[in-house]
Amino acid sequence: MSQFSRLIRFEGEGSDVGPFFADLGSDPDTAIPRPGMQLSAFRSIEDLVAGKAEPQIVGLGKLAIPSYPPLWTKPAKSIAAPDETIPINDFCAKSLLDYEGEMVFVTSKDCRDVKPSEAGSYILGYTVGNDLSCRMFQLQKNCAGQFFFAKAFDKFAPLGPTLISPEMYAKTLSHKLVVKVNGEVRQDVDLAEDMIFSPEKILSHMSQGTTIPAGTAVMTGTGAGVGAFRKPKTFLQDGDVMEVHMEGVGTLRNKLQFE
Amino acid sequence: MSQFSRLIRFEGEGSDVGPFFADLGSDPDTAIPRPGMQLSAFRSIEDLVAGKAEPQIVGLGKLAIPSYPPLWTKPAKSIAAPDETIPINDFCAKSLLDYEGEMVFVTSKDCRDVKPSEAGSYILGYTVGNDLSCRMFQLQKNCAGQFFFAKAFDKFAPLGPTLISPEMYAKTLSHKLVVKVNGEVRQDVDLAEDMIFSPEKILSHMSQGTTIPAGTAVMTGTGAGVGAFRKPKTFLQDGDVMEVHMEGVGTLRNKLQFE
Repeated sequence: MSQFSRLIRFEGEGSDVGPFFADLGSDPDTAIPRPGMQLSAFRSIEDLVAGKAEPQIVGLGKLAIPSYPPLWTKPAKSIAAPDETIPINDFCAKSLLDYEGEMVFVTSKDCRDVKPSEAGSYILGYTVGNDLSCRMFQLQKNCAGQFFFAKAFDKFAPLGPTLISPEMYAKTLSHKLVVKVNGEVRQDVDLAEDMIFSPEKILSHMSQGTTIPAGTAVMTGTGAGVGAFRKPKTFLQDGDVMEVHMEGVGTLRNKLQFE
Repeated sequence: MSQFSRLIRFEGEGSDVGPFFADLGSDPDTAIPRPGMQLSAFRSIEDLVAGKAEPQIVGLGKLAIPSYPPLWTKPAKSIAAPDETIPINDFCAKSLLDYEGEMVFVTSKDCRDVKPSEAGSYILGYTVGNDLSCRMFQLQKNCAGQFFFAKAFDKFAPLGPTLISPEMYAKTLSHKLVVKVNGEVRQDVDLAEDMIFSPEKILSHMSQGTTIPAGTAVMTGTGAGVGAFRKPKTFLQDGDVMEVHMEGVGTLRNKLQFE
């Protein structure tokens, strides 16, 4: 049984900015806390496990988890917070920018050589992410087949806004992941039907011979509807607002600002 | 002008194990320091730049630099020290294990959007590495073309034994990189002839839109002679000793131990 239902990571106010963790409870209609609110907070995942909470004032609402997808990685600087505006420099603006809404799971403990049947006990919870990608650098001639560079740009991995527990994830009625751009539905994926590998199988595979650190965020891949496969192709533009929604987790919203 | 010629990173003895950095001087025949020796050492790259040295006793001779190759990454746990025996679990032992001797450069400062003409000022120095790879997971059917997983296993990125300054690298007579397995020459690459992109061009490209952190080790790719392209194919076996040598840097030697 998890010690939380919907976890957020946030910065405090004043001299002690944290980061802190807090549980929003199991009601999915509860709003994300705003700056100035007081929450019962934990200083670390270890404190959460030990039940050591303390009151803290919310500074900026931020969820920021290190990101290590299964078959390539996004670096730490690629993390972006919910509601954060994402600056796009000229180099990326011209490189066929696209969204990918994805379910994301986060690991709770270091693990290695884990069997699929044991992998569930290493999953801290579930959230959503947007695996932003410059398709120009996924073309064979520009990347020799390797996708890392196309997806590694600063703030190209928004994550959040909440991390829900495995129990809450199991209880949610809909595992639909819906992506909108400027309010228009672009992806509407039923994870129960569309996922090729379960989180447990992905984590087991990743961990063979390789230590997966606690707090690793695994972006599990996207479904149909990305801009590169629409007819006509539709890449992201200055000012576009992207939303990735999953029941329980809430909506991850980010605006693009071309520099 | 660099503050050092041949830099090593090592652990101290007793309660303060460091890590520390020390300069071995410009004589390439100087041996790697042994446990118990005293060296004039720096606590950080910042201290090195500021000239703040202090005497330290060498514990274990270790060079360990975080590794982020240009088009995919190897995680921190993949780093292995010079002379370290590399344990290979059964999963990897059966997966067509191969060596790749490579020149490696390390960055000195955070950088982003760097031009090729400016990139040299972000290079701290040069060393060699062995980009160990399980070829089984570079097959299209097993990795969908992505090389990350095949190369990310624990201790699959030995680096070292020294980091030479850009001035010392420029002055070395031979930029030959020689790889031996059990004493037999397998790769004999002239970097001056064989490198497709210069370190400056690689770093410039990597940094477009992406912050490259200080201390990033960039493995620059390998030349002819890896086991997978020999006739007949020759993969690594239990007990094999791999050596990667470059003038000035010295020899990076690692033995494989199948579990």
